[in-house]
Amino acid sequence: MSVPVAVVGASGYTGAEALRLLAQHPEVHVVGAYARRAAGMRLAEVFPQFAGVPGLGELDIEAFDPDQVAEAADIAFVALPHGDSARAVAALYERGMLAIDLSADFRLRDPAIYARWYGSEQQPEHPEPGLIPKAVYGLPERYRERLRSARLVACPGCYPTSAILPIAPLLDARLVEPTGLIVDAKTGVSGAGRGVSAAVHFSEIGEGVRAYKIAGRHRHTPEMVQELTLAAGATASLLFTPHLLPMTRGILACVYARPTDPSRTTDDYRRALVSAYDDEPFVSVLPSGRTPDTAHVRGSNRAHVAVEFEPESGYVLAMCAIDNLVKGSSGQAVQCMNLARGWPETDGLEPGGLFP
Amino acid sequence: MSVPVAVVGASGYTGAEALRLLAQHPEVHVVGAYARRAAGMRLAEVFPQFAGVPGLGELDIEAFDPDQVAEAADIAFVALPHGDSARAVAALYERGMLAIDLSADFRLRDPAIYARWYGSEQQPEHPEPGLIPKAVYGLPERYRERLRSARLVACPGCYPTSAILPIAPLLDARLVEPTGLIVDAKTGVSGAGRGVSAAVHFSEIGEGVRAYKIAGRHRHTPEMVQELTLAAGATASLLFTPHLLPMTRGILACVYARPTDPSRTTDDYRRALVSAYDDEPFVSVLPSGRTPDTAHVRGSNRAHVAVEFEPESGYVLAMCAIDNLVKGSSGQAVQCMNLARGWPETDGLEPGGLFP
Amino acid sequence: MSVPVAVVGASGYTGAEALRLLAQHPEVHVVGAYARRAAGMRLAEVFPQFAGVPGLGELDIEAFDPDQVAEAADIAFVALPHGDSARAVAALYERGMLAIDLSADFRLRDPAIYARWYGSEQQPEHPEPGLIPKAVYGLPERYRERLRSARLVACPGCYPTSAILPIAPLLDARLVEPTGLIVDAKTGVSGAGRGVSAAVHFSEIGEGVRAYKIAGRHRHTPEMVQELTLAAGATASLLFTPHLLPMTRGILACVYARPTDPSRTTDDYRRALVSAYDDEPFVSVLPSGRTPDTAHVRGSNRAHVAVEFEPESGYVLAMCAIDNLVKGSSGQAVQCMNLARGWPETDGLEPGGLFP
Amino acid sequence: MSVPVAVVGASGYTGAEALRLLAQHPEVHVVGAYARRAAGMRLAEVFPQFAGVPGLGELDIEAFDPDQVAEAADIAFVALPHGDSARAVAALYERGMLAIDLSADFRLRDPAIYARWYGSEQQPEHPEPGLIPKAVYGLPERYRERLRSARLVACPGCYPTSAILPIAPLLDARLVEPTGLIVDAKTGVSGAGRGVSAAVHFSEIGEGVRAYKIAGRHRHTPEMVQELTLAAGATASLLFTPHLLPMTRGILACVYARPTDPSRTTDDYRRALVSAYDDEPFVSVLPSGRTPDTAHVRGSNRAHVAVEFEPESGYVLAMCAIDNLVKGSSGQAVQCMNLARGWPETDGLEPGGLFP
Repeated sequence: MSVPVAVVGASGYTGAEALRLLAQHPEVHVVGAYARRAAGMRLAEVFPQFAGVPGLGELDIEAFDPDQVAEAADIAFVALPHGDSARAVAALYERGMLAIDLSADFRLRDPAIYARWYGSEQQPEHPEPGLIPKAVYGLPERYRERLRSARLVACPGCYPTSAILPIAPLLDARLVEPTGLIVDAKTGVSGAGRGVSAAVHFSEIGEGVRAYKIAGRHRHTPEMVQELTLAAGATASLLFTPHLLPMTRGILACVYARPTDPSRTTDDYRRALVSAYDDEPFVSVLPSGRTPDTAHVRGSNRAHVAVEFEPESGYVLAMCAIDNLVKGSSGQAVQCMNLARGWPETDGLEPGGLFP
Repeated sequence: MSVPVAVVGASGYTGAEALRLLAQHPEVHVVGAYARRAAGMRLAEVFPQFAGVPGLGELDIEAFDPDQVAEAADIAFVALPHGDSARAVAALYERGMLAIDLSADFRLRDPAIYARWYGSEQQPEHPEPGLIPKAVYGLPERYRERLRSARLVACPGCYPTSAILPIAPLLDARLVEPTGLIVDAKTGVSGAGRGVSAAVHFSEIGEGVRAYKIAGRHRHTPEMVQELTLAAGATASLLFTPHLLPMTRGILACVYARPTDPSRTTDDYRRALVSAYDDEPFVSVLPSGRTPDTAHVRGSNRAHVAVEFEPESGYVLAMCAIDNLVKGSSGQAVQCMNLARGWPETDGLEPGGLFP
Repeated sequence: MSVPVAVVGASGYTGAEALRLLAQHPEVHVVGAYARRAAGMRLAEVFPQFAGVPGLGELDIEAFDPDQVAEAADIAFVALPHGDSARAVAALYERGMLAIDLSADFRLRDPAIYARWYGSEQQPEHPEPGLIPKAVYGLPERYRERLRSARLVACPGCYPTSAILPIAPLLDARLVEPTGLIVDAKTGVSGAGRGVSAAVHFSEIGEGVRAYKIAGRHRHTPEMVQELTLAAGATASLLFTPHLLPMTRGILACVYARPTDPSRTTDDYRRALVSAYDDEPFVSVLPSGRTPDTAHVRGSNRAHVAVEFEPESGYVLAMCAIDNLVKGSSGQAVQCMNLARGWPETDGLEPGGLFP
Repeated sequence: MSVPVAVVGASGYTGAEALRLLAQHPEVHVVGAYARRAAGMRLAEVFPQFAGVPGLGELDIEAFDPDQVAEAADIAFVALPHGDSARAVAALYERGMLAIDLSADFRLRDPAIYARWYGSEQQPEHPEPGLIPKAVYGLPERYRERLRSARLVACPGCYPTSAILPIAPLLDARLVEPTGLIVDAKTGVSGAGRGVSAAVHFSEIGEGVRAYKIAGRHRHTPEMVQELTLAAGATASLLFTPHLLPMTRGILACVYARPTDPSRTTDDYRRALVSAYDDEPFVSVLPSGRTPDTAHVRGSNRAHVAVEFEPESGYVLAMCAIDNLVKGSSGQAVQCMNLARGWPETDGLEPGGLFP
């Protein structure tokens, strides 16, 4: 029997992407879409791509009320701004729902680190620290078993997903040093969300590329450090340089690392990736000589990864391409839901990209 | 039981799009991908978006052999260049298959008109004129009943699909004149196919828009005239101006027409569209005041249509947005297959667009 | 001796484009840049492309004060929102300056028509109707002689420039009917200005095309009607359909018209354009068989025009490509300044496009 | 008196960009445009942006003949494929011309390194090794004095220009280690030239980003190593990762380096850049907190540079944005010509970018 699901924060891009995927999922049906400012509007007014779509076309956006959501649905995807998300997740979790949080609120295990990066004057501390231990980091390739029994999923950030996937297996296997990592990542504009600003104005973005929040100022940094430290079994350090590109979807991450043993070859690193991902439904290690391209994963939940060692400079370069709104966000969230509910892990998810 | 299907002409964009859709179709599985120059290659080498995709990732491209195709599959999608396509379709049709032709070969009912527009020195006449009467024009919104028993489907061109959908109901209802129509259409670059040329070079296309094959020189003109003449019950005449835009997918068609009775209002025209498309699974008449946007139908089989009358100038403007590779090509082909096989018409097709 | 010039409204795209062009003009130097909200900022902070540019890099943006502007400069480019612009222009005109208005305030000769299209509750009427007769419409190809003695130039809208240039000569020569014209125009996003909104969000624009303000709702309509009526010597009527494209600069206008005599050929229409533009420094009639492309005029003050007659449908199609920020705005303004000051008409203007 | 100049290799993008800049240069006039396959065509047919442009619009492309070129012109810009370029340059140099080579042929000082990277079966060795010592590397910021007396200028590659400018001053001052450098660079598609291929097909590039020729396989690697070794006074080693982005012009280079003394701060590195570039007419060190954007330098000869030190990871990040066809190629070539002829260094070059 089809399971009722709700999306809280339905007026943003990650909320919309969750709705798109859930509407074509064989085990669930969408019973509610919630948002603050858009409450009262028809969903298809806010997102015209849903006009006429069965299960979404006639949906009205409602103001969020946890009792109502818990009454109507068994599962909730929460895509609210951080802080707000934690409170909504807590309310739904307490009411017995499976809560899948797309915000940053439950990604960091240490509330002090959360406070440093996400705290504000109004809300200096994590609003729901007691729930942090309940959350499972929603990266199936690394937490699959724990996700099977999760009731609170903390979906990873888009950049951390793209950085962890190609390098964590090399840290697991102690093939590269955990310190002095460089993550040079390139993203499309949709990662900045639907809010308007000069930074996402078409005319300011077209035909241009720039780095932003460089030198450790991007909030996805501590999340990467946390997960790569866990992989390495030793404190990781890294420099993260995000870039904004004139495209809408996609992240390409280049991770530069130093080998623990310079005598190894590209094949050694590649084998570690193949061995880690051979059975993964959504990670493809590309054939030697191919490089990942975000155009090849658009709209799908797939990650393309590759690795090369360059002896002259002494660096290993591990790369990964994902769709930031799918594997980097709502698609991965669906994958986690599938695990938590015991459904086939690929249900409702496109296996390959919309190309061209 | 799952039905085996083959794609002939698998190295082009429409072939690839057919493969993408067929791989996620609940009633079929892909048993073969055929192409001339790419024969012997792994499909995922030619189209990396298929790396790791179940049913496609391990497929090898083979050279086309009709006996082999007919042995392996029950249904064939043929996406070859015109002329070649007719011969392949004939060979497969003779062997009892359901043949779905994505080329222009069986769209025109009059072989003389075909010869004038598609004839070459090597092949001045239609190669298989005897088959023309067997072909059903694959526009479900207009030929649904005939498609249910079709064994040869002639899938419409992308531009004709975008032009016929918004204006044919107005011609059916004799609301607009069939002569002096203008079709000003804007397309993404993928409509030109995967072949390389200066005309599709990124650096020549980026940040530019231009009309091409203007003043009646584009081959989709006679196809539009044929179908709009049938709709009007009187000879249609039109000026078709295609444009190339700096985007990959999508067609937006603006059709300008003169009313048969200038006293009617926008509502009258809108009602004709609503009445024609109310029960259609893939056509949405947008709410008053909204205009179609190709970004909202990308990747989906949906058409967004709208209409307005402007009394000062005396023109009716009917608009339609589609994804040229889906509703304009391979998605519509799948929709036709569904009809011809008696499956739910929406099987295997995304109902709404990948936005943003 | 170099003439001092000021730009009022320096924080928008047309103001910036005026600054760019004036900084490389041999006869003038920029003495001031004025804007309301950006006052107090360094110009290069607001527009980083000016960092280090001689004459602009060290400029500070100031709050507008007509006395100060009139003291510092002889010529002012005013690129303020309509209404505000009229008042600023009046203040500068009264102080003896040459005022070049980039807004819509002095384009329409009839204050009643202005009031209908631009009036607001706060400002229902034209703020400076007495100045309207002083203004010369800044289209050198049609008002060159009057521009030589102008002290108030009303620079045309970008769309009207692109529509008038290809069709006015055919109306002048009575080759086409002045009624039932269609202007189907396609523009880049910079035409919407620098203000942020969902409509210019990169993720909402990328890979999409849509019409907007259709059916006579765009404010450039009465301006086109005014100028084409003057050309035809009879009341013109037209349907204007503007489109937004995923590119930053450029307008391509397709103007559809009915011939006064259907026996004429493409050559007749082309001759009329060649004869009108043969001596023009910034209008190129393309060779037969070529169509205008906005990519070929980017950054330059040039217009590419072409025309074809299609006998089957009975329409003449006249086309024009310009850069909306140059020939469609600030470049044309500089051309007008050159005329008004008796300088070589091409001073300070790139003759050809930045391509690719 | 105006000096006659010729462009050899006029049918490619760098040749066209040279023509665009030379046509607006106050000291020269273009007397000839040469190309092999396009010989006999009107230049404006091959590059429609030159239609109507004084000095270019009426030019015919001719087949290259060194005697004819030497007779007609004093200066030649040579933009031929490597190997061909060396031979043409030699012929023109021998005839007494100032030869400005835009190819890779005279960039590398060691003919053995040239042979390893550029040798082919047909031409395993440098075709004109005797001329190598005559060539001056055309980076004015580093070779200004030698360029003043140059008769053969070897214009730098676009990537090396973007990598050397931000990091060389730090190597000069011994602030960073010369080994283990990483150059992660992002380029627009025009860098691949005008030749058609799948790699530059719009539909394959749009909405995608990928690295290519990674792990030391790109031919610009030895050129960077050569110049950075000279700057450091010690052998440099680096990993170069070029990326292709969905835009036409522009390169953004991120250079990662390790400090020689970890106690220094961002200010120390920034001071080194400011001190190196304070008097440079075309290099702007951005204010603290700003990052370079290719959109801000498009069409201009300017480089925007910035630097930050991140103590956690221990890396210095130096960044640079240029227009690959201007400062990365033909604009820098004009700058070199200006130096070699004793003209003002900025003649004929736009000081700031065409933005938006």
